[in-house]
Amino acid sequence: MFSFDIQHTEKRYRVGVFHTPHGDVLTPVFMPVGTQATVKAISPRDLTEAGASMILANTYHLYLRPGDQLVARHGGLHNFMAWNAPVLTDSGGFQVFSLSEMRKIDNEGVTFKSHLDGSMHRLTPEKSISIQQNLGADVIMCFDECPPPTDREYNVISMARTHAWAERCRRAHARDDQALFGIVQGGIFRELREQSARAISAMDFPGHGIGGLAVGETKQEMLNTLEWMDAALPVDKPRYLMGVGEPTDLINGVARGMDMFDCALPTRLARHGAAFTATGRINMRNKLYEDDEQPLNPGCACYACRTFTRAYIRHLLHVGEILGLYLMSLHNVHFLIQLMADIRRAIIDSRFEEFAAAWLARYSSVVQR
Amino acid sequence: MFSFDIQHTEKRYRVGVFHTPHGDVLTPVFMPVGTQATVKAISPRDLTEAGASMILANTYHLYLRPGDQLVARHGGLHNFMAWNAPVLTDSGGFQVFSLSEMRKIDNEGVTFKSHLDGSMHRLTPEKSISIQQNLGADVIMCFDECPPPTDREYNVISMARTHAWAERCRRAHARDDQALFGIVQGGIFRELREQSARAISAMDFPGHGIGGLAVGETKQEMLNTLEWMDAALPVDKPRYLMGVGEPTDLINGVARGMDMFDCALPTRLARHGAAFTATGRINMRNKLYEDDEQPLNPGCACYACRTFTRAYIRHLLHVGEILGLYLMSLHNVHFLIQLMADIRRAIIDSRFEEFAAAWLARYSSVVQR
Repeated sequence: MFSFDIQHTEKRYRVGVFHTPHGDVLTPVFMPVGTQATVKAISPRDLTEAGASMILANTYHLYLRPGDQLVARHGGLHNFMAWNAPVLTDSGGFQVFSLSEMRKIDNEGVTFKSHLDGSMHRLTPEKSISIQQNLGADVIMCFDECPPPTDREYNVISMARTHAWAERCRRAHARDDQALFGIVQGGIFRELREQSARAISAMDFPGHGIGGLAVGETKQEMLNTLEWMDAALPVDKPRYLMGVGEPTDLINGVARGMDMFDCALPTRLARHGAAFTATGRINMRNKLYEDDEQPLNPGCACYACRTFTRAYIRHLLHVGEILGLYLMSLHNVHFLIQLMADIRRAIIDSRFEEFAAAWLARYSSVVQR
Repeated sequence: MFSFDIQHTEKRYRVGVFHTPHGDVLTPVFMPVGTQATVKAISPRDLTEAGASMILANTYHLYLRPGDQLVARHGGLHNFMAWNAPVLTDSGGFQVFSLSEMRKIDNEGVTFKSHLDGSMHRLTPEKSISIQQNLGADVIMCFDECPPPTDREYNVISMARTHAWAERCRRAHARDDQALFGIVQGGIFRELREQSARAISAMDFPGHGIGGLAVGETKQEMLNTLEWMDAALPVDKPRYLMGVGEPTDLINGVARGMDMFDCALPTRLARHGAAFTATGRINMRNKLYEDDEQPLNPGCACYACRTFTRAYIRHLLHVGEILGLYLMSLHNVHFLIQLMADIRRAIIDSRFEEFAAAWLARYSSVVQR
């Protein structure tokens, strides 16, 4: 049911098709995040129009509300949220470590207090797989620990636990219409990362997540780690760089052989009033745009840019109208998806390096104005 | 540029076409309210899909933010908000009396303090027309006073002022691509209402608003007033019952010869979690709907009902997702627009009374569960 066909390569950059029970995904791909079974403020039909082919949903949140058993009764995530295309769920591990209170980790699993109501819960590799089977995504992830990336001593202990948990996830995994991906950890340490890549690859998962990045390390540390990962992981399986969505990181990830990316960044930025443009982020609450008749990003083909001026969207944000959040979210998601389409085209045309250099020279991750 | 063709009548119920520079409007019509140049949470293309033919925007709000001159610089409301269909603006009068602080009324106009920042402003009939000309709606309204409906003594004074202001609005009105409607006042008092209808009709406006209702009087007092209005106003011009949108009021209004209606009710209810159904309002936050696989209103053709279950929408509202507000708003607006289409069909088929009786017997305005 799952296979990954690499269709074009230019050096180590690759364009592929990842086949899933809910359709094909062209890679490199950016997956918008639908934490609570909705990509914030965007309907499924608008997501499709924006070019989204695969989305992510969060196991931790959905386990707490509305509950994975409720989602299962309603036919799984695809039916529940009316998204008839590929879905990936994370394992809940990252959120347990970043959101919950009073977590206690042991070799069996993690006990934690819900950030919503203080109730106590326990996640184990088996429980995470069981929840993800109820949610019914096409791709599910191994339950892992996401430790602070620069603490070597702790990463040694934690990595061993993540490997043991990966093996338990593999044994618990039962649905053949779900692909279970392994996750490589090891912080910013080359030796640990290579050791983790070997251990996880040996378990023969159909794809590999690269965890523990974009969580506090420097950009250079992240790029170094991706270089090691590119060399250490099998080339014929998709590599998923977890939690990364800044445009420059997407380009730098593809440049290091990465295939899949997800991030809540585009919708979160939208709610904070920041729009992606060809030259960088702009703050659409700025009075500068009060009378600006241009679209958010001139040349963009999304509904927001085809239809409305910056002046109108600035007004909506200024007076607190939901339509403003919707248009900004739609645009930012479309922007990253279009970037991935442009990247795929560039690789197919064997001009990815020029494309990447021109893009990175033009674009600034810092808010422009 | 403006004309009103009554195409079908059944007794005093009527189906017509109101021609405007931005297109034809089939009447009886419900106009969704876009207070700040957006119908809350709904994009123009979704409004069109929901069947909206004409919308209302609020002069008071748009005068304060973003300012009518800014809207004029961007080509008026149609261009600014990308709504290429008919628009009506109110005069600002009602909001000055209901929203602003420290208002002081004299025969020339009203001085008031903005509810947003406490700044002082003055509206006069001439200023209201000037603002509405800048906003550029197809139909604009005379600046009137909306007094407490049951205070007879004050209604006598206020009505005389409203008539004098109507005459001043008529003189100030300059754009022939805008139709200026007069407004009848007079509270719940037959003699005053009939006197006001005579005075306003004599000024030969192309349409008549009925103001000062749905502001504290009883249902029976409102219906009595509509009976008097139906008898007193010229039949060949559209009658616009201002600020009314409860489904039963729409039916009762059409039953008394009314043609146009507006109300923020459908989107406001949506934000409070209430959905219109064939049998009445339901509270979609209710745990009762946690596992309900039906659409919001079975049989409804809107995007929300075609696509999603109550269980999913209840989840979205429960966890505070914007998509929930969007789907609820879309459904409630579609519901009222569909009701008006059904009413028009019933009148054309000469079965409005049966339709109305069956509808009112089935539907309760009180939240069902």
